[in-house]
Amino acid sequence: MTYGSPDRHSGTLTQGGYSDKVVVSERFVVRMPDGIDLKSAAPLLCAGITTWSPLKHYGVQAGHKVGVIGMGGLGHIGVKLARALGAEVTLFTRSESKVAEAKRQGADHVVVSTDEAQMEAVTEQFDFMLDTVPVQHDINPYLKALKYDGTHILVGLLDPIEPAIEGFNLVFKRRVLAGSLIGGMPETQEVLDFCAEHDISCDVELINIDQINDAWQRMEKGDVKYRFVIDMASLKDNS
Amino acid sequence: MTYGSPDRHSGTLTQGGYSDKVVVSERFVVRMPDGIDLKSAAPLLCAGITTWSPLKHYGVQAGHKVGVIGMGGLGHIGVKLARALGAEVTLFTRSESKVAEAKRQGADHVVVSTDEAQMEAVTEQFDFMLDTVPVQHDINPYLKALKYDGTHILVGLLDPIEPAIEGFNLVFKRRVLAGSLIGGMPETQEVLDFCAEHDISCDVELINIDQINDAWQRMEKGDVKYRFVIDMASLKDNS
Repeated sequence: MTYGSPDRHSGTLTQGGYSDKVVVSERFVVRMPDGIDLKSAAPLLCAGITTWSPLKHYGVQAGHKVGVIGMGGLGHIGVKLARALGAEVTLFTRSESKVAEAKRQGADHVVVSTDEAQMEAVTEQFDFMLDTVPVQHDINPYLKALKYDGTHILVGLLDPIEPAIEGFNLVFKRRVLAGSLIGGMPETQEVLDFCAEHDISCDVELINIDQINDAWQRMEKGDVKYRFVIDMASLKDNS
Repeated sequence: MTYGSPDRHSGTLTQGGYSDKVVVSERFVVRMPDGIDLKSAAPLLCAGITTWSPLKHYGVQAGHKVGVIGMGGLGHIGVKLARALGAEVTLFTRSESKVAEAKRQGADHVVVSTDEAQMEAVTEQFDFMLDTVPVQHDINPYLKALKYDGTHILVGLLDPIEPAIEGFNLVFKRRVLAGSLIGGMPETQEVLDFCAEHDISCDVELINIDQINDAWQRMEKGDVKYRFVIDMASLKDNS
């Protein structure tokens, strides 16, 4: 792996994005489109492609109603990408306090998922759910919010799915529960080009390398909108 | 509903398939193809269409590897339909004793699902799983048997899915868990025509109406290959 694995040549551990230089096959290089802001483009290579790949794979387009679950690094870029693809986008968040922020990110609608009445009101409304939540949560209320033939796409949850999915929530409406992991190289170039064309970027906080411990602590508290990006020029200043 | 619900005209309960006559809109009538054996065709209207609909919806065809889970009324017709569509079919059963019967029904291969070595040997082999099991069972071993982009189709399980599905079994290989319920009228005509054309029928035991209590007890013990069909002419003899 590019980070934390034995280096093929030196036998030391690979340093991934902390490297000054890295030698790779051209197959694993993407071209940064002209005019893209580097710091804001950095998370497109992870959060961006993770949300782009399933949106493209399942053919999200104008006329579709898409729910995005979770207002974090993946969720905020998922909202922007789905909207730019022409979909009508609803952001689901547990917290009333995130409603204004979700609207600012471009969500057409916001549903507070802890409010049963709001969840009831969206029964059988959606073609797709993009579920960015990385911890266990009840998927059943979101399945009910899908139309006949609707698709719920997990991009963050690797743990056992508990509470249990009710079989009838899939069977009765021919709904689909799918998983998706990051994306391939052609799609990664595609999302960069798409974002440059549509003036989409991730919201980031640029930090210097010597702020990394503080940033780690803030990240663990969820206190970042929405990704920290390290200015690698600051590594040279410090070395 | 056509059975056990208030009749729109008489106010008595509807009798469904036990009726002598029933008045319906032509939209809900199917044509029995010439030469089809009536008693063997009867379960095509339930077990047949239930397995046919997802096989068609997901485009099962020659070149696909299909697993059918469960060797009952749905499973045995699922094997025949998937094979006639050109797929290579593997029947999954918990019981070594059903291996010969599964081969007789046309399965290309049989896997005893309680044998871990046999399950390991089919890791990432299948495009589709047609899961006919109507009671709770662990779906994870079957998900692992799916290729990248493979689809597991539930047609029998309405209960909570326990043990829990591991999120990574979906996410890492972009696998899909889907549900499907019976099928519509055009597909029902289609499966009847397909079965007539390919000489496919359900294995049934024809009984008279006065054997129904005995048949019910045998059905509860799983002692039927694979459906009881009542000869309605015997109702007249007994009335």
